[in-house]
Amino acid sequence: LINEKHAMHNPVAELHPFDAAIRLQTLGDGVSRGTTSADYWNLAGPFGGVTAAVLLQAILEHPRRQGEPVAITVNFCAALPKGSFEVAVRETRSGRSTQHWSAEMVDPDRRICATASVVCGVRREVWSHQSARAPAMPPAETIAPFPPVIPSAWLNRYQFRFAEGAPVIRERDSALSGPASRMWVNDWPRRPLDFVGLTALSDTFLIRILHVRGYMVPIGTITMSTYFFADSAQLAAQGDRPLIATADGGIFSGGFSDQTAALWSDQGQLLATSSQVVWYRE
Amino acid sequence: LINEKHAMHNPVAELHPFDAAIRLQTLGDGVSRGTTSADYWNLAGPFGGVTAAVLLQAILEHPRRQGEPVAITVNFCAALPKGSFEVAVRETRSGRSTQHWSAEMVDPDRRICATASVVCGVRREVWSHQSARAPAMPPAETIAPFPPVIPSAWLNRYQFRFAEGAPVIRERDSALSGPASRMWVNDWPRRPLDFVGLTALSDTFLIRILHVRGYMVPIGTITMSTYFFADSAQLAAQGDRPLIATADGGIFSGGFSDQTAALWSDQGQLLATSSQVVWYRE
Repeated sequence: LINEKHAMHNPVAELHPFDAAIRLQTLGDGVSRGTTSADYWNLAGPFGGVTAAVLLQAILEHPRRQGEPVAITVNFCAALPKGSFEVAVRETRSGRSTQHWSAEMVDPDRRICATASVVCGVRREVWSHQSARAPAMPPAETIAPFPPVIPSAWLNRYQFRFAEGAPVIRERDSALSGPASRMWVNDWPRRPLDFVGLTALSDTFLIRILHVRGYMVPIGTITMSTYFFADSAQLAAQGDRPLIATADGGIFSGGFSDQTAALWSDQGQLLATSSQVVWYRE
Repeated sequence: LINEKHAMHNPVAELHPFDAAIRLQTLGDGVSRGTTSADYWNLAGPFGGVTAAVLLQAILEHPRRQGEPVAITVNFCAALPKGSFEVAVRETRSGRSTQHWSAEMVDPDRRICATASVVCGVRREVWSHQSARAPAMPPAETIAPFPPVIPSAWLNRYQFRFAEGAPVIRERDSALSGPASRMWVNDWPRRPLDFVGLTALSDTFLIRILHVRGYMVPIGTITMSTYFFADSAQLAAQGDRPLIATADGGIFSGGFSDQTAALWSDQGQLLATSSQVVWYRE
């Protein structure tokens, strides 16, 4: 995919940094190689959303893949070091309605750093009903993008415009805040929406402990599941405009906390839901 | 585990049907064998909650397992036929805080019927905070158990006492109802709570389409993730008393719908959250 804003200024179309970050070279037999991205680096490893997108991309590029993504679960086992990595994908089982895949990402020492399971499926013309309602939002252009609160490169690759629940950095032992946020979110530079982009977007929400306590502690997502409720045409119709997003959490217990999120088109269509467990220390 | 109510009446302690259903015989090298349970049979295969519990049990029995379950994701690939099956588990990666596992269940023809990923971890004495609140509930003993609405054996192995959102069977094309439910739930016969029991309980909620439309259509869970926010001592403290549970859904789209659930102790402690994608046809 080409970033049109860049392309207009450049006779040689430039790859969006996200597409560069998830680019894979096929080595054959379900194995491909990629390289970690400085643009999407986190504090001690790649941004998990890009790791998830790379694992999905490897499955989407497989010649036996049928249908479109319905669900992805990613388990983050260990930080991937800077440099090259390999992804191996395997078709687990294919049926009439769904196709199951698994994927593993290994570092140059062949240690597993992340695993994924993906379900693909064919969406059909059946009774459909959205009981969930997108939250009311002021227009995106009336809210300034929130400045990055931690020195992670990947935060510069997204824009967050909070309508509610922006994190407020404050003294330790201040009163607790609520965990819920409501915002507009988009890639930066903007990028037309697709399944890999939506997968990464579902992991962009700042950890809830920062919202609740007002300061950072060591954290890491250990598992994330994102479910898709739109097809590729519906994602394409959203284009590169900001998505409506909500993020919340309910518990921080013994070093493990939950986080849930929902991502909506700017027309209020529920595109994806996501949940994750975050390890924390303090 | 012994069901004490049975044991009181029987000099030879009787195994609870759930413990019989998840019993595995170790074949060595991370491989074990089990048998499907008539007590927990669904319409066209085993109840998914027991399949999930069997996959977790295989990991819990592995000699290299460290810590307690934090998260499990199960992908239901195809119906397991009646009879014996095998489970193969693999340690994916172990770190200081977490240990990652994967598991596969195969039928006698060696076809994969279900896969799972499990994260174990050690819960520590750190800052903890539950922002989510359990719903207000009338006492369990003031609500009659709901009669099974479909002829699935496993429904007789649980009791549901609805405080809100009991399914109402009605004519097709009736007005839609909301998807949310609030209930007490317990094993039947009662069984002391543990991680495998809680895993199965997280899959007991009737599909949301039945609540919304008022009649059954062909359905099947394709993936489920359950996160645990309590340790084994906290689960044991709950004993065999009914849990508070909420279940909800937000969208039915193109043949795939979402379902979320939360399970709470009768003291209001959030024990587990769960989400799943349900395939449906109509």
